[in-house]
Amino acid sequence: MATETLDAPRGGEWTDSPYLKQLAAVVRAEDSYGTWDEKSDADLLSEFIVTKEERREIPIIGDPDPDVMWRLEKFYDAVGLLIEKQTGCMASQMQKMSHEGFGRVVLIAGKLVVVSKHLRDVHRFGYESYAKLGEAGEKVTADAAAIIAQFPDAAKG
Amino acid sequence: MATETLDAPRGGEWTDSPYLKQLAAVVRAEDSYGTWDEKSDADLLSEFIVTKEERREIPIIGDPDPDVMWRLEKFYDAVGLLIEKQTGCMASQMQKMSHEGFGRVVLIAGKLVVVSKHLRDVHRFGYESYAKLGEAGEKVTADAAAIIAQFPDAAKG
Repeated sequence: MATETLDAPRGGEWTDSPYLKQLAAVVRAEDSYGTWDEKSDADLLSEFIVTKEERREIPIIGDPDPDVMWRLEKFYDAVGLLIEKQTGCMASQMQKMSHEGFGRVVLIAGKLVVVSKHLRDVHRFGYESYAKLGEAGEKVTADAAAIIAQFPDAAKG
Repeated sequence: MATETLDAPRGGEWTDSPYLKQLAAVVRAEDSYGTWDEKSDADLLSEFIVTKEERREIPIIGDPDPDVMWRLEKFYDAVGLLIEKQTGCMASQMQKMSHEGFGRVVLIAGKLVVVSKHLRDVHRFGYESYAKLGEAGEKVTADAAAIIAQFPDAAKG
């Protein structure tokens, strides 16, 4: 990997983030046969890391790779589960994607849209480091929790 | 058409429904070259009519036909526009479809989910008559307006 150096592994240090833990659990849940049991959480989430150099090399023409779409879905599934843990409101995901990597993802709790993101360049979805991945997930979750606090009745409806 | 008789045309009588008018306008907007100018609104919406006999003959195996998906989208686009006329709140559509004709469609105004329908047997989407098509669209619109009246701040958000 061109971006690896001796003192800074790709993705940087693993951090003690509730979101990273949740995302690793979501990915691990796909492993019905336990073939990833030996893998660390960092290994499991290594595909969510896209360094600056890697980012530049990913073309943004045509449909995004199915693997990217899978990671995007898992990213927001983990957000949904963390929202439920923190607020008690279950949030389910809906996506609307065009063929060129533009789209929208929403998480819905009751009658309330708690997350609404317009996406672009989905082909390049990923984070430079585990720290940034964790922070991003926690930020989306915190914003959702704030919206639920603002409209609690709609979130229950 | 096996279901036509001399005194009852397929789809029954056209009715003076704001929803039917809106839906016809939505479909007509697709006609960039004016090739449907001579067609009546009833003609334009004839594909939304599925009689009981026709319904039975449509298999519900595999992916729904792209034409059905198009009609489903137009149905809810028209609902969204009618909601906007009646409440001032713009409502945009998102769909999540499985490969077997199951799915969910939502209309979102601001942070509020004003329509949420779980769909099944999408292959057979359609109404027996123009009267029933119009009533169905008006019912969904009225329910959405009631939700907006209940949570006006979330709908503006």
